[in-house]
Amino acid sequence: MRKIKLKIEYDGTNYHGWQIQKNANSVQETIEKAIYKLLGDKTGIVGCSRTDVGVHAYGQVAHFVTDSSIPGEKFSYAINNLLPEDIVIKHSEEVQEDFHSRYSAKGKKYRYLIYNEAHASAIMRNRTYHVRPELDFENMKRAARYFTGQHDFAAFQATGGQVRSTVREIFSIELLRKEDNLISIEVSGSGFLYNMVRIIAGTLVYVGMGKIEADEIPDIIESADRTRAGKTAPAEGLYLMEIYY
Amino acid sequence: MRKIKLKIEYDGTNYHGWQIQKNANSVQETIEKAIYKLLGDKTGIVGCSRTDVGVHAYGQVAHFVTDSSIPGEKFSYAINNLLPEDIVIKHSEEVQEDFHSRYSAKGKKYRYLIYNEAHASAIMRNRTYHVRPELDFENMKRAARYFTGQHDFAAFQATGGQVRSTVREIFSIELLRKEDNLISIEVSGSGFLYNMVRIIAGTLVYVGMGKIEADEIPDIIESADRTRAGKTAPAEGLYLMEIYY
Repeated sequence: MRKIKLKIEYDGTNYHGWQIQKNANSVQETIEKAIYKLLGDKTGIVGCSRTDVGVHAYGQVAHFVTDSSIPGEKFSYAINNLLPEDIVIKHSEEVQEDFHSRYSAKGKKYRYLIYNEAHASAIMRNRTYHVRPELDFENMKRAARYFTGQHDFAAFQATGGQVRSTVREIFSIELLRKEDNLISIEVSGSGFLYNMVRIIAGTLVYVGMGKIEADEIPDIIESADRTRAGKTAPAEGLYLMEIYY
Repeated sequence: MRKIKLKIEYDGTNYHGWQIQKNANSVQETIEKAIYKLLGDKTGIVGCSRTDVGVHAYGQVAHFVTDSSIPGEKFSYAINNLLPEDIVIKHSEEVQEDFHSRYSAKGKKYRYLIYNEAHASAIMRNRTYHVRPELDFENMKRAARYFTGQHDFAAFQATGGQVRSTVREIFSIELLRKEDNLISIEVSGSGFLYNMVRIIAGTLVYVGMGKIEADEIPDIIESADRTRAGKTAPAEGLYLMEIYY
């Protein structure tokens, strides 16, 4: 058997997230069906990150095993022919048997896009979080710096998360102004708690609105109290950019 | 009667262009219906640019007359409530009686987006022109410079155009690399012939592929021969950015 690694881009708008589930259209199932059409084999694929409904990916990674003789790098072309346009295999390759999309991952990079204008964007709808009041970008930048490093991020975890430890390391977090009205939060880290990036984004938006002071962030992290952080920013602004191995 | 000016953003994917036509969904008709719902008046709106099927706009401008007493700047909010999400009135204001969205225009700015990678983009589908072979960006930049200034652009007009003069002035044309794989052509000018920006984009893509030499551009312009320019690049990469008054 050979192991194939896929790098996947998708527009999450029309899917109920990555993970297969009953009575709902998932990215995983759509790709598995395409592989089934290609190989005639019911092959399960294992994705690194279970992105939620509406979340997008430029760099989701998944693996599967097969005894097909198709060269590793050709799978992307062959599968893409059988996929809808909103899912694209960007890259495929054969990997060592011990590679695992989830367990071999050393970190991830996310982007969160905020569209800051009085009226929503027609073109960037489903792609950005629309925030109406003008945000104080410099304050948001100042607040963001406090997230860097290793912290207990319990205050930035959706309730119901069931992980043993809530300590994570953020390698870097950067705020960029992409166009006049488009703010990008680029964050990479060792791993993320459930909804952690969306809660960080929501907290930075509160800082931009003046509802939370930039210098309160260390205190909020320290408190481990979810109610002190900002709201969970909506799924449509979130992009899984890259997975580090 | 009062005259109201609208600045409009739309995602052209689901419309048969700006202009009202029988048996097809147009941006103009969708806005007119929303205004009708708001005011109870069948009010015709006059747009500056008749964008084609699939073309997007960040800054289309239209005007209409009304005897409603709604303050000019409030129309955007009121009409947006009645529009689908892929059309947004970004700004509205009352203007002088002699303002005309088309005849008062002094120039326009367009953007053309090229996605240059082996595989298409799931997220930027319907938003970019996917070009597979790696383009020579520096050559494209060099070629673009030749378009600046006043020229007879007959070679860059779709056949069937019926204008008296094919002389136009390009104020500026700039190529930007937005992300690794995203090239933006930003062009502003006094006015544009039918499909002119898309033919310029297609010609620059040919330069990027080595099918046309950068230094051939002056000769191609001079020739006034449509067959010497590149192919008309597809509608989905084109954005009407701004109209100058």
